[in-house]
Amino acid sequence: MKHLNLLLIFLTIILSSCSEDNVNQSDPLPSWNSGNTKQSIMDFVNNVTKDGSPNFVKPEDRIATFDNDGTLWSEQPYYFQLQFALDRIKAMAPDHSEWKDNPLLMAVINNDIKTVIGSGEKGLMEIVMTSHTGMTTTEFEQIVREWINTTRHPKTNKLYKGMVYQPMLELLDYLRANDFKIYIVSGGGIEFMRPWTEEVYGIPSEQVIGSSIKTKFEIIDGKPVLLRLPEIDFIDDKEGKPVAINKFIGKRPIAAFGNSDGDLQMLQWTAAGDGKRLIVYIHHTDAEREWAYDRESSTGRLDKGLDEASSKGWTVVDMKNDWNKIYP
Amino acid sequence: MKHLNLLLIFLTIILSSCSEDNVNQSDPLPSWNSGNTKQSIMDFVNNVTKDGSPNFVKPEDRIATFDNDGTLWSEQPYYFQLQFALDRIKAMAPDHSEWKDNPLLMAVINNDIKTVIGSGEKGLMEIVMTSHTGMTTTEFEQIVREWINTTRHPKTNKLYKGMVYQPMLELLDYLRANDFKIYIVSGGGIEFMRPWTEEVYGIPSEQVIGSSIKTKFEIIDGKPVLLRLPEIDFIDDKEGKPVAINKFIGKRPIAAFGNSDGDLQMLQWTAAGDGKRLIVYIHHTDAEREWAYDRESSTGRLDKGLDEASSKGWTVVDMKNDWNKIYP
Repeated sequence: MKHLNLLLIFLTIILSSCSEDNVNQSDPLPSWNSGNTKQSIMDFVNNVTKDGSPNFVKPEDRIATFDNDGTLWSEQPYYFQLQFALDRIKAMAPDHSEWKDNPLLMAVINNDIKTVIGSGEKGLMEIVMTSHTGMTTTEFEQIVREWINTTRHPKTNKLYKGMVYQPMLELLDYLRANDFKIYIVSGGGIEFMRPWTEEVYGIPSEQVIGSSIKTKFEIIDGKPVLLRLPEIDFIDDKEGKPVAINKFIGKRPIAAFGNSDGDLQMLQWTAAGDGKRLIVYIHHTDAEREWAYDRESSTGRLDKGLDEASSKGWTVVDMKNDWNKIYP
Repeated sequence: MKHLNLLLIFLTIILSSCSEDNVNQSDPLPSWNSGNTKQSIMDFVNNVTKDGSPNFVKPEDRIATFDNDGTLWSEQPYYFQLQFALDRIKAMAPDHSEWKDNPLLMAVINNDIKTVIGSGEKGLMEIVMTSHTGMTTTEFEQIVREWINTTRHPKTNKLYKGMVYQPMLELLDYLRANDFKIYIVSGGGIEFMRPWTEEVYGIPSEQVIGSSIKTKFEIIDGKPVLLRLPEIDFIDDKEGKPVAINKFIGKRPIAAFGNSDGDLQMLQWTAAGDGKRLIVYIHHTDAEREWAYDRESSTGRLDKGLDEASSKGWTVVDMKNDWNKIYP
């Protein structure tokens, strides 16, 4: 009898340590307040993952796509990648005395952000091209890595990589625990995100989709490199998002998360598939803990999307009321 | 004592059924003859996967890229995707009486393959564009699915999807069992491959990279679709292969497999990384069981690559002598 007890104890220990269905009984989304929003997310996940559910989706088809700026991390007072570009221009300036004749680049160097923003799409593109190209992909990765690990946001004094939303980190973990494959689908630069998304979000580079510039394969001094060219390859925004999802993934997501009109087509494309879908807009409603903006904002405008979410019954996260915590 | 024996038996059964390090003691590559080629592959895998090895690579960085045509399946007497295009033109012909004034399309319809091949890159591009565009991505997927499941190769009378190499299927399984993530990186059309790579190779669509045409997001009758446009997006061949690997994966492979000069840059890019690398060319040497061709072939020419493999000491698979079986 003694041996039989021992046997049972051993069996219990071993079975529990090797079980893959180890279910966490505690709340997987502690930074989300109870309510309809949280419930709609959890209902969807239960619905598509429960064996025998009429809406069951095989693990390999559990694709979820997330916008980055304003959805996984903050984007005010302007996109963080623009700050990176401005910092790069200033760092490069000592080697470019010829920039003294370029009013736009001089505005960057003199912290004249009003002129920079006022330069519009054409001016911003020049700033991005000047700061983001002309080096190898390996060199650029190193530059991004250094910036993201050292630079702080002027308002919060947090590292930029600390300006990510704790409730969204929990949501990513929750989805992964339910065998979802998570992709970032961002208007931001693909090679600006990849050096840190694994560390910060647990999302590996091959699951990061973004805007890109062209690269060119060359053998320099016997060593193959990819050179970053000052030429747009693809803008991963608006209609570009479903195009990129189809190109990179080749499957239609069953869940999509965005925060602006730039995400609308991704949400429409996701919603148009068969079966249960989870379509979510993050609505920036918290002027105190983060920022409050929507229809009139130049960064992350949410106007048409807000109307469509309302008419289609999509889930809209009210940051102020649905989240009890913003940053980790 | 009796109970203790029982305990040991139970433990053994349970541990073996839940262990993830379950090592298959039998030969993982039975269709590969013993010899240097097989040994170089297995030595590499042992080297990068063995805990404590100075060449150990973390599972998330175990990226292996494979060309498709001539590397995973046959490509003679011409690329199978060209046969698909020709079959499509013939299927579409009844609705296109205007093609009677187009000598190239009439050559296709009349099985005049000599004229078709003789039309060169421009002619072949017209055939591909005519047959591959003008529908939604969903419609195209269905067309490919139907073709691949019904069409047979004129020489072997096998279904095209049965013209895959058994030794390579074993190699894919062996690498996956060792936590490699496998990508196809092919000059073939990305949306021509994806409908069947999961079934045939166990490679999901998100791990298939290929040449692409542009698509356009549109809402037609209230339903979002992606329309396939008659415009090249990207040619995933030669210098394009490392460019696409960087864009889609964002990591450098540690193993790469090709069979032609079109794969050379992918192999060079892979070889240029730090640490142990496995660089493999499949050399078509078996005129009896498959085809024998290399430096002079118009399809799958292997000329510069053969020289570089020799000078760099890459692994060259001699199909005739290294493989005891070709097709499943």
